[in-house]
Amino acid sequence: MRSVGKSRAATPDAEGAALVSPWPVRKTTQRNRDVKREAVIRAAARAFNARGYHNTSIDEIAAALNVTKPTIYYYVANKEQLLLECILTGLERVLEPFRRPREAGVSARGHLNQMMRHYAEAIASEYGWCMVRAEDLGLAPASLWHIKRLKSEIDQGIRRLLEEGVRDGSIQVQDLKMTSFALAGALNWIAHWYRENQSMTVGEIAEAFIRIFNLGLEPRAAEGPRAAEGRPRRPRPHKEPIP
Amino acid sequence: MRSVGKSRAATPDAEGAALVSPWPVRKTTQRNRDVKREAVIRAAARAFNARGYHNTSIDEIAAALNVTKPTIYYYVANKEQLLLECILTGLERVLEPFRRPREAGVSARGHLNQMMRHYAEAIASEYGWCMVRAEDLGLAPASLWHIKRLKSEIDQGIRRLLEEGVRDGSIQVQDLKMTSFALAGALNWIAHWYRENQSMTVGEIAEAFIRIFNLGLEPRAAEGPRAAEGRPRRPRPHKEPIP
Repeated sequence: MRSVGKSRAATPDAEGAALVSPWPVRKTTQRNRDVKREAVIRAAARAFNARGYHNTSIDEIAAALNVTKPTIYYYVANKEQLLLECILTGLERVLEPFRRPREAGVSARGHLNQMMRHYAEAIASEYGWCMVRAEDLGLAPASLWHIKRLKSEIDQGIRRLLEEGVRDGSIQVQDLKMTSFALAGALNWIAHWYRENQSMTVGEIAEAFIRIFNLGLEPRAAEGPRAAEGRPRRPRPHKEPIP
Repeated sequence: MRSVGKSRAATPDAEGAALVSPWPVRKTTQRNRDVKREAVIRAAARAFNARGYHNTSIDEIAAALNVTKPTIYYYVANKEQLLLECILTGLERVLEPFRRPREAGVSARGHLNQMMRHYAEAIASEYGWCMVRAEDLGLAPASLWHIKRLKSEIDQGIRRLLEEGVRDGSIQVQDLKMTSFALAGALNWIAHWYRENQSMTVGEIAEAFIRIFNLGLEPRAAEGPRAAEGRPRRPRPHKEPIP
């Protein structure tokens, strides 16, 4: 799922970088290792989410996975690294749509809407809790720098899409920075109110947010059939607001 | 400035509720007391903002005001009460525009825009830091309940304005709850990125956010002169986006 996770996962283990085994069992082992490492990070994210970072021990995370503490230390050096991995996992998910080429026929606004769906999924997942508290949990400067770099990449990605949207005619915008901050803020705040037992799915929340940011509050003059958000060439009738 | 602060300020002091002195000096004393109490709360907010809640001592807050620790305890019972007062002060500021009658000729959307200006001011002030971290700082359930009640009042106020806007024709909206959450989320997040040394004033940030939420990203068809945001009857020309 995460390429970053995989590349870093190879570092601490003692298999030796030069020795690449041709036997498939080795590949399976590596895949198993990645799967297990991911399970460790996800379990940590859930525990931090439920009890807070400072109130969670490695023992509790191990217990949730039915393993011992040394098993956790096989995958990460300490609790701080676990927290960092949780935050990076979430941020990498948000970044996914920025790193793949745009589908044919999709406007920049359509791509931005896809990004909002990914963002909502990531922030409403178990990783959301630590993603929005990244700066408050006492991480080391190097970790904070890493987080800041990914957050800046997200911000730049949003601004770039906005600019492209102005060029392809799918977006109107006055202030790129403020628009990026308003979008990210509204999406980040989902982590503060979303609970899995809520009446709406993350997908429904994302569509509601896309609609709000696309259309705005000011009533639009009768414009006839509106361009579909993803593919501006296929017209779709405008739904009346149901307050 | 805050009616809540005043009413609660009267409780712990020993002046006696039944004895109301006719001498003006008494009134001055009460006013002085309110001013000083506010200064204590503001100093606490700044200290929490700078060093975090758990890393700040009452001694440091006292030192910032050139007073001794007992002086602080004359106004609040403990550090937790100081934190609660900081959060309530911020939330009360957001609530102000909901509690006063709408000016003549202002649409519900115009009133909502005024609310956004107040919200931005409050959240970018020294109270913003603790407002957005209210649930994370280990407050007692009674305090959390108090905060939740005010936050719910803000949410209901936004939804009511949205409904009124649909009725007076100044707002289009599909999902009241999601729109309220998107607005509050974008505004709350200002506390995470705003620093006083930034290139934009809070007023400029508020106007940018108002524009984003009013107009949306989807380009509007040529509609001729658009209704001004505050007073829909006075037409104003539509500014072209400057990306």
